[in-house]
Amino acid sequence: MQTMNFMDSMFFFIESAQTPMHVTPLLVLKPDPEHREGFGVSLYRKLQSKTTVVAPFNWRPRFSLTGKHRWQEVAVDLGYHLRFAAVPAPGRQAQLNELICRIQSQPLDRTRPLWELYVIDGMSDGTVVLYMKLHHALFDGTRINGYARKMLTQSPVHNDWVPIWQHEVYAPQPEAPSSGRLRTSLEALGNTLTQARMLPQAMRLGARVFGGALGMLPKRSKTPLTAPRSVLNTTPARGRSFASQQWSLERVRAIGKLTGASFNDIILTCGDMALQRYLSRNHRLPDKPLVVLMPMNVRQPGDMTSNNQFVPGLVELQPPELLPLPRLKRIQAAATDTKNEIREFSPALYEKYGVLMQAVSMIAGKYGLESKLPASSNLVISTVPGLAEVRYLMGAEVVQVAPMSALPPGQCLNISAYTYNGKVCLGFLGCRKVLPDIGLLANDMDRALDELELAALTQPKTSLFDRYLPHLANKRVSLHSNPEGVILKQRQSTGVR
Amino acid sequence: MQTMNFMDSMFFFIESAQTPMHVTPLLVLKPDPEHREGFGVSLYRKLQSKTTVVAPFNWRPRFSLTGKHRWQEVAVDLGYHLRFAAVPAPGRQAQLNELICRIQSQPLDRTRPLWELYVIDGMSDGTVVLYMKLHHALFDGTRINGYARKMLTQSPVHNDWVPIWQHEVYAPQPEAPSSGRLRTSLEALGNTLTQARMLPQAMRLGARVFGGALGMLPKRSKTPLTAPRSVLNTTPARGRSFASQQWSLERVRAIGKLTGASFNDIILTCGDMALQRYLSRNHRLPDKPLVVLMPMNVRQPGDMTSNNQFVPGLVELQPPELLPLPRLKRIQAAATDTKNEIREFSPALYEKYGVLMQAVSMIAGKYGLESKLPASSNLVISTVPGLAEVRYLMGAEVVQVAPMSALPPGQCLNISAYTYNGKVCLGFLGCRKVLPDIGLLANDMDRALDELELAALTQPKTSLFDRYLPHLANKRVSLHSNPEGVILKQRQSTGVR
Repeated sequence: MQTMNFMDSMFFFIESAQTPMHVTPLLVLKPDPEHREGFGVSLYRKLQSKTTVVAPFNWRPRFSLTGKHRWQEVAVDLGYHLRFAAVPAPGRQAQLNELICRIQSQPLDRTRPLWELYVIDGMSDGTVVLYMKLHHALFDGTRINGYARKMLTQSPVHNDWVPIWQHEVYAPQPEAPSSGRLRTSLEALGNTLTQARMLPQAMRLGARVFGGALGMLPKRSKTPLTAPRSVLNTTPARGRSFASQQWSLERVRAIGKLTGASFNDIILTCGDMALQRYLSRNHRLPDKPLVVLMPMNVRQPGDMTSNNQFVPGLVELQPPELLPLPRLKRIQAAATDTKNEIREFSPALYEKYGVLMQAVSMIAGKYGLESKLPASSNLVISTVPGLAEVRYLMGAEVVQVAPMSALPPGQCLNISAYTYNGKVCLGFLGCRKVLPDIGLLANDMDRALDELELAALTQPKTSLFDRYLPHLANKRVSLHSNPEGVILKQRQSTGVR
Repeated sequence: MQTMNFMDSMFFFIESAQTPMHVTPLLVLKPDPEHREGFGVSLYRKLQSKTTVVAPFNWRPRFSLTGKHRWQEVAVDLGYHLRFAAVPAPGRQAQLNELICRIQSQPLDRTRPLWELYVIDGMSDGTVVLYMKLHHALFDGTRINGYARKMLTQSPVHNDWVPIWQHEVYAPQPEAPSSGRLRTSLEALGNTLTQARMLPQAMRLGARVFGGALGMLPKRSKTPLTAPRSVLNTTPARGRSFASQQWSLERVRAIGKLTGASFNDIILTCGDMALQRYLSRNHRLPDKPLVVLMPMNVRQPGDMTSNNQFVPGLVELQPPELLPLPRLKRIQAAATDTKNEIREFSPALYEKYGVLMQAVSMIAGKYGLESKLPASSNLVISTVPGLAEVRYLMGAEVVQVAPMSALPPGQCLNISAYTYNGKVCLGFLGCRKVLPDIGLLANDMDRALDELELAALTQPKTSLFDRYLPHLANKRVSLHSNPEGVILKQRQSTGVR
């Protein structure tokens, strides 16, 4: 039996009937016209025939009162995990979204290995959907991408593909130190601190975090310590709402080239703009800017160990009165601050603090205390760089990927972005009670990209002055009458539908 | 807000992710050939348009630490409760069973009213399935039958039908005495006992129950106090298996006429015979006869209050060596004993004892103690007399009904029988891990009916001696060489496949 590491066991601890902690990516397959008839059944039968199941797809969790949770290898009833389903008439996106929301809102069975895979038939456009439900304790976005890379073939004629549960890519994690208890993590933190070289860093970080929490040091704090109360910060009910979007990756890259912003910066900015518009509609925009929890991958390239390896970075979004480009600049700066802070304090140390801070707020959410404690973030935005070129499964082209993650306690919105074959695939997962009209948010996100793109394309070209004397750029900008593009609040709010 | 009575709140207490306590009857509708195209969509749309929701379909539970649980009226998001679904290709019974097992194995959302209704499309024979998921705390079989009687029309042209959630048939239950705590029930029992006329009865019952539990009074005990340990007595895992059967009611009635047995006696006997055969296959038959928990309805005719009103009667099945008719006679006698005992001790008192005995074993199941304590029963068999004549929904004939109930903690099999339009509709619900091949059990039940019918048809006619001197019948029988039809065990076991 494998022991379970702390972060992995946290996913079980915060999991409840309201907040199942699984990741549920979706692949849309388009078979050739001559193979379209019965493709869903054929794919399901083919998968059924692949009965060998390797780790971690044959692992079930074994919980211990001592906190030493473990993974146990068990025999797998493949017919339970592999499921054939269909959307009802008229077989369009709305019916698919309904179905996957129902599947998403149901926790996995902890007495069995923690995955389900659905072949979904009945789409009117002849596509067949492969929908995976994988527990976050074993699978994060980066790891799932690794599995997708192995399972999906680069040519349609490639026929000897193997399903995700047959890939021997798992590298066992070290036996120690690992445990399922907060206390033990604190001990581990203590152990880390006793390593002399980390002590000064830890003291600075501790002073910042706890000083900030007590209302001290507000000026020195670059990354936010608490998030404003918002409609997004209740513990979600059981129902889910979902919407997806696809963008051309080229458009995002062009904006990046014109503005110097990263992919993540652009996603964050579009998310900010979309949420401004979406929340303003019902006057639900909080007074302070929203704070995004953005998991930052700290996995080394090629590392396919199963446990979760990300640092929860917090990025503050911006106030409503900013125009797109200044908003992007500021978010870029905020994200850079977060990254620098992670670097400054060493990933290991920052992760432990970050995990503890998140743990406190998630545990608060679990016990319904989220209204008593300040939230640490308002929503999750995660990005995973995916597969660059077109892929196939059993000869059918993967025409779309929709990332779909989990809603932790106390949070009602998760936006995920995944790049595939020159496209940016966006998935919006929400609590059905709080965000029943999440499709509007997806449209707002699309509109935000249009606006940001237009702003980037029509901005004045960078002058030689900017290029060769960048240290003077700030002074030059200050000569403008409206350096940050602040517009009158009045005008902005009339512009909102 | 309505208060919740003790029995209703018990269903929440014993409910877990493994043992969701909802009842899930299924109706198969066969539209006319000219209305077949798009009937599923039309039915779903029609239901969608019926947005008014009355009690208890707009009640959600409110739990209190003091045990005074209540029902609260809330606004209903009909789109959450009413769902359109489809079976995948080839759209046959197996695909339908898979789908409803998945739906059955997922608990209802306690933050909303406790029901879901699925319109299931995609069956290859052109039928459309209406699948209801109703929490046992509000709905028992008899009550659901009352709703079916109201919703289903007696003529196909009748078009002004209303769905179950619009029937104002709920009679509010009294405010007191009711509570969600065992302690309070014991107090209620105490109150009952202080009524002088019940005291002697209660002392006799108490002596019998507790004397029996301590191994005293074995001879006086007619109904069983504990059940043998069997494979059926583990707490079910999350997955479910399901099979259904339809019999002609005429056949069962004919057997009853020939043997003097009741409908329930015949169902119990066929269940016993089927289980003997089914469990023998894998050498899983326990040494002692199985004990059935058969809910006995104590509701007065016309009483449509929502709370549960049944007495859990325990009936011991018979050892393997009996032939069908003697088995039926003995089961008939055992069931009569149980009924007499209920009468002797007054339903109210017996119910409270019965509930407490069941509660102890279900609570034991909930905490995984079922292997430490003796089981009180091995399986549930319930029968509900249903609708006598053919019914329709939106013009489509109801061609089949499949009753499907819940698996309480510590029990892995539930057999339900429902009569409809000259048919006996049987539903077999099992734990997928323990009874993956439950279809075999359904076939064994069918075979049992054949055997019992043959035995009844070929038995010697009742003589005048039996008719006019029944008190001498026993003596006469004892003259036979093999009075109870006991056959050699050897022969029986070679006869088993």
